[in-house]
Amino acid sequence: MPELRKDPVTGRWVIIATERARRPQDFSRQSVEFKSGRFCPYCPGNELRTTPEILAYRTRGGANEPGWTTRVIPSKFPVLRVEGQTTRKADGLYDKMSGIGAHEVFIETPGHGETLSTMPVKRVEDIFWAYRDRVLDLRRDVRLRHIMLFKNHGEAAGGVLDHSHSQLIALPVVPKRVDEELAGAKRYFDFRERCVYCDIVAQEQEAPDRLIAESEHFLVISPYAARFPFETWIVPKSHASHAETMTHAEIPDLAATLQRTVRKFDSVLERPPYNLILHSAPVQDHPLAHYHWHLEIIPKMTYVAGFEWGTGFYINPTPPEESAKFLREG
Amino acid sequence: MPELRKDPVTGRWVIIATERARRPQDFSRQSVEFKSGRFCPYCPGNELRTTPEILAYRTRGGANEPGWTTRVIPSKFPVLRVEGQTTRKADGLYDKMSGIGAHEVFIETPGHGETLSTMPVKRVEDIFWAYRDRVLDLRRDVRLRHIMLFKNHGEAAGGVLDHSHSQLIALPVVPKRVDEELAGAKRYFDFRERCVYCDIVAQEQEAPDRLIAESEHFLVISPYAARFPFETWIVPKSHASHAETMTHAEIPDLAATLQRTVRKFDSVLERPPYNLILHSAPVQDHPLAHYHWHLEIIPKMTYVAGFEWGTGFYINPTPPEESAKFLREG
Repeated sequence: MPELRKDPVTGRWVIIATERARRPQDFSRQSVEFKSGRFCPYCPGNELRTTPEILAYRTRGGANEPGWTTRVIPSKFPVLRVEGQTTRKADGLYDKMSGIGAHEVFIETPGHGETLSTMPVKRVEDIFWAYRDRVLDLRRDVRLRHIMLFKNHGEAAGGVLDHSHSQLIALPVVPKRVDEELAGAKRYFDFRERCVYCDIVAQEQEAPDRLIAESEHFLVISPYAARFPFETWIVPKSHASHAETMTHAEIPDLAATLQRTVRKFDSVLERPPYNLILHSAPVQDHPLAHYHWHLEIIPKMTYVAGFEWGTGFYINPTPPEESAKFLREG
Repeated sequence: MPELRKDPVTGRWVIIATERARRPQDFSRQSVEFKSGRFCPYCPGNELRTTPEILAYRTRGGANEPGWTTRVIPSKFPVLRVEGQTTRKADGLYDKMSGIGAHEVFIETPGHGETLSTMPVKRVEDIFWAYRDRVLDLRRDVRLRHIMLFKNHGEAAGGVLDHSHSQLIALPVVPKRVDEELAGAKRYFDFRERCVYCDIVAQEQEAPDRLIAESEHFLVISPYAARFPFETWIVPKSHASHAETMTHAEIPDLAATLQRTVRKFDSVLERPPYNLILHSAPVQDHPLAHYHWHLEIIPKMTYVAGFEWGTGFYINPTPPEESAKFLREG
């Protein structure tokens, strides 16, 4: 019997199609492959072919020279720019705003061909240090209300360049879905006086059907109302609303945990394309008792997306308990 | 300067990336092609290889025999079933419900290889007659709160079988996104005492930058805060909340308008995959003054979907005014 499950944060119902549960081998393969031989602007030696760097961690050399291990540059094709004013205007019955904000690219490693699975774990760690540095800098501009860190791995996940990188977008508005997540978490908090994510952590530790892995500071789970096959969340055990407040102890643990998780993807799902999205509270907000930052990783296993886009109604052909079992054992 | 635009119904902000506006030729091509030679269960003569039909329009023959022009069957792999009870249960802090509902397939034409663009226009018309017939039947089951009609054209849009078909899903809950649309339209109505879609129709007729076509009863537009390149809506000029109340005059006009629209897609965008979704009010609701049914058609031009799924934040690389211009002139 198919089951409808409700996401405890957003209130979204998802169909979990238990009767035709799809296993990893039932999905058509589209493993991420590297194209070699093309010119890569993100490779060491080509620093002058990119926009000038905003931040770099380096072992040698000066700004925009080789010797870096992590490099942050403004996007060459920014969807938003820092210059200008936030001006809101009517357009008949519609509303618009000039697109101020920031769009930055985090080049995660000098090694072309490396991925989150294969790069040194220190490189994964430095993504979060660089994120923290950039958030602390950007949030001084009070027009910037929300900052998102995300990664599109592989063409089918929207990745354009092969060389491993993440992106940061800073926005003058809080996106609707983020607002919904915050509002849903607030509703739960108002009712129970507890953080919903803290409750999720407690429940998933006790009944570990959906538990994929556990480290000192993090839980890796298949969420109860997963929208997608093998959707995976990494949730910190300690409550914190803002990811930029991660501790010195948490960051290396998160890096190791994330790397172990994508390695499981690579082995069980054969190097799938995926999207990684850091969910964190709006940067101008004070610490929130009701929100809890976390990472969501969505392997792109199916094409059945258009309908879901249009309706917000998701049909997941792989129960989260099955996803967790494959990934736990993989 | 990139522009942030707000959808007047849902309140969702979208980035319209004006500076790197992408034209039809800038998207990588993935034209929908027919695979021939495979066994097709939807072809005439193979009626006994499908689930028994629920409804058919035919010129000759009996039930489950050739001679039909439109045929409606239960999905062989239903995500929901009509049998059983709606039972809601707690699962620790989570909520679940047994998955009652209905999942039906509308085989739109006996002609294998035909598409909405190439089939006789009467076949397109009959999709809406069959939809109306099925809604009037299904809504007698008061457990079914919402009925969705949609079409996945081409593999990249989630289409599995080549033979042209649409799908209907009847649900025991109103999906979150539908609820949001209804709530947003209600907010606008409470403030202005007018239907937001009626206002959109009026504004788009006066300032036709985003107008693609106009027929006696319908407007074809690129919506102001389009999430996707070449996203297209067909909106009835007359107010009605429920699509199943379409008149005898409107249905043939809708069919002809829809066919003209997908023909434009085929010529301008080179037979793109697309999703078509009928947005209509929940079937158990009385006629609503604040909601207005319409069709949304989303050609699948880009892969950049995963990030949007995760955040609900859309970046549209083609301004709706450009999309409309290409489609109007195409």
